[in-house]
Amino acid sequence: MGILIKDAMVVLPEGEEDKIAKHSIYIEDDKITGIDNEPQGFKAEKTIDGKDRLVIPGLINAHTHTYMSTFRNVADDLSFMDWLFKTIDPLEAQLTEEDAYWGSCLGQLEMIKSGTTTFNDQQMHIHQTTRAVMDSGMRAVICRGLVGDTYDLEDRRLKEALEEAEDAGKCDRLKFMLGPHAPYTCAPDYLKMCADVAKEKGMGIHIHLAESATESENMRKDHDCTPIEYALNAGVFDVPTIAAHCVQVNDADMDILKSHNVSVVTNPASNMKLGNGFAPVPEMIEKGINVCLGTDGAASNNSQNMFHEMSLLGLIHKGTHATPQCISARETFRIATINGARALGLDKLTGSIEVGKKADLAIMRLDVPSMMPNNNLLASLVYSANGSEVDTVIADGRVLMEGREIKTLDEEKVYFEIRKICQRLGLDNRTY
Amino acid sequence: MGILIKDAMVVLPEGEEDKIAKHSIYIEDDKITGIDNEPQGFKAEKTIDGKDRLVIPGLINAHTHTYMSTFRNVADDLSFMDWLFKTIDPLEAQLTEEDAYWGSCLGQLEMIKSGTTTFNDQQMHIHQTTRAVMDSGMRAVICRGLVGDTYDLEDRRLKEALEEAEDAGKCDRLKFMLGPHAPYTCAPDYLKMCADVAKEKGMGIHIHLAESATESENMRKDHDCTPIEYALNAGVFDVPTIAAHCVQVNDADMDILKSHNVSVVTNPASNMKLGNGFAPVPEMIEKGINVCLGTDGAASNNSQNMFHEMSLLGLIHKGTHATPQCISARETFRIATINGARALGLDKLTGSIEVGKKADLAIMRLDVPSMMPNNNLLASLVYSANGSEVDTVIADGRVLMEGREIKTLDEEKVYFEIRKICQRLGLDNRTY
Repeated sequence: MGILIKDAMVVLPEGEEDKIAKHSIYIEDDKITGIDNEPQGFKAEKTIDGKDRLVIPGLINAHTHTYMSTFRNVADDLSFMDWLFKTIDPLEAQLTEEDAYWGSCLGQLEMIKSGTTTFNDQQMHIHQTTRAVMDSGMRAVICRGLVGDTYDLEDRRLKEALEEAEDAGKCDRLKFMLGPHAPYTCAPDYLKMCADVAKEKGMGIHIHLAESATESENMRKDHDCTPIEYALNAGVFDVPTIAAHCVQVNDADMDILKSHNVSVVTNPASNMKLGNGFAPVPEMIEKGINVCLGTDGAASNNSQNMFHEMSLLGLIHKGTHATPQCISARETFRIATINGARALGLDKLTGSIEVGKKADLAIMRLDVPSMMPNNNLLASLVYSANGSEVDTVIADGRVLMEGREIKTLDEEKVYFEIRKICQRLGLDNRTY
Repeated sequence: MGILIKDAMVVLPEGEEDKIAKHSIYIEDDKITGIDNEPQGFKAEKTIDGKDRLVIPGLINAHTHTYMSTFRNVADDLSFMDWLFKTIDPLEAQLTEEDAYWGSCLGQLEMIKSGTTTFNDQQMHIHQTTRAVMDSGMRAVICRGLVGDTYDLEDRRLKEALEEAEDAGKCDRLKFMLGPHAPYTCAPDYLKMCADVAKEKGMGIHIHLAESATESENMRKDHDCTPIEYALNAGVFDVPTIAAHCVQVNDADMDILKSHNVSVVTNPASNMKLGNGFAPVPEMIEKGINVCLGTDGAASNNSQNMFHEMSLLGLIHKGTHATPQCISARETFRIATINGARALGLDKLTGSIEVGKKADLAIMRLDVPSMMPNNNLLASLVYSANGSEVDTVIADGRVLMEGREIKTLDEEKVYFEIRKICQRLGLDNRTY
């Protein structure tokens, strides 16, 4: 199918920067085949008028747990350990395979509606996440959450992870990585086993590291090291790693992350909401670490909206560092797009609007109060937009949403099923 | 006109708390005349089906500069003093009266679209703000920004402020306060004059206090006191005062604010964006100070969306204090509603949904991803909503927006005029 987006404002990469100017984009099948220059034999089955429109690369949510959207707003204003072990884990244990499918659909609905085309997921029931991605049309990296005590190649969770990667790995919108959960849920031998298997299979690793002060204190007490050193010692960083959080990292930790090319996903809403604080993002950028951005799950955020997350990232470090210059709108937008693609090993495919890349993009309205006047559109994306400006979303060349109507999933059916699950679990329509 | 909102989820005050349950609301003319109990002789000219709807009191933006929306995203990632004196002030000086009208309309469009019904404005050209409020249908407190060096009752700005209050003060959607800008732009005598006039006229004062570290350092150097003490010494706190920012306040300052019943407007986005840091909001609440919430102008925020601001308020202090319990969703929502009404002396009229109060409310959709599932709606308002869930807005009993269509202002005309202004000033459609 040929799609022409005609004379819209477009965010294009120009060296290390992004520039916004008027362009036309030609899409054939799953790819961008022309920018301003019409490809030979191009036939537009669909033309989108670019008047009052801004085209951005689809945002990349580099760390989330999509089906946790079912547990949005059930456990608020609690400490991290109480939140995780006393509320969320027991609820998650009650989810069926079918529940996980609908939960992932809900998370993906919210992401599509706010301009995200790619996400990196870690959870159980990954076959259901795969199924939901096949239906939604998004691009995803799927990681089975792994926890364990011993070096055991027969580990049930590991086998699930590998089987799913084998079965579903042929769809080029899907990629699989191993997801050892965290230092406090993976013993050294288990973590080493994950690293060995990942190396052997040529897979990456997606892990939570140095999220809370409690984690770091316990790690010091039990293993006399930091969570970063713990992962290093287990060989995790010998394979391409994307590390979520990294709030509690010192200078030496950051040097380790940099020298091993570990990408860091920062999750500002979740880190604040659970009282874990602020990751040293400006310092990590200064070190040359590839920092990207994620929402984390809706049980701790409580949103899957990357515009909200961009705004937080663009603001909070100016506050903590008492300087408006410490992170720019321009850097923030790159963190939410190409840096995420790089972290997931997908930067040849997505993360920017370029000829030859997959057509993963969001078309936003400029004739709405939050984007008006159109003084500086990169700043608008970070400081003014709330995500509802996204009108049309295209992923892998397919229209997932148009005029805010989702074309792939059945929104009403998703809400119906989610309500049923919440009613069964005694969660829905509680008065507060 | 009689409006019935039938069987919706509604946020109602219950003692010091808010509760959400299913209710019907009866509106006659400008007032709420019944909740669940149909008033005698009630006739519904309009019935709004409450299915999948949540009714909240209209949000109260307790500190902004509406016409600065024209300068959204023109001066980002700059230090406070460079931002104010090198960029914003010179641009503001070029605004005509007519420009100010359209700028205020733009700010109000964004507020209505995100559920705000009342705002507290400080700027020049207040007659144009009055005019824009008359047209938009919002409720507003209007304050002429005052700056000066001497005790001069013939001061041009003061006279403008008093004349406007005299002329327009008959519309009960409008209230006028005096707006001495800040300690660093008002000499002690001038500030004393403002306090004396406010006392004589029975007006309140709306002032910027203790916003930046530079302000506090200069105040210490020049006057050997804090900005709070400076205002106290000038007699400002002898009249009802609403003080914006209060970022740089110590324990003694907070005691002064509390003992003089000064309300504090916190502006988290603006304070972070300009590198001014975080106001000690949990400490001020602990002291019993009435804290309310504002966006500040779109030149420093860069949004007029109170949902964005609520989310920031609900998150950042959990981050800085490393505890998820330091401010709850429930407190945050009160800060954005009834506390604002109290600060503006409007709590008999607005800020909560109660029989006898003005019908100032927003009706939100619950059948959208960000509000789904409906597990805990107060948490959803603070942590998940982005403002675009607001479907219908009623202020003073009049429908300002329905199905997201603005019924009072002409959106397209506002954008057309704003673009003309920006083009004249060389700001529009700049590539970044």
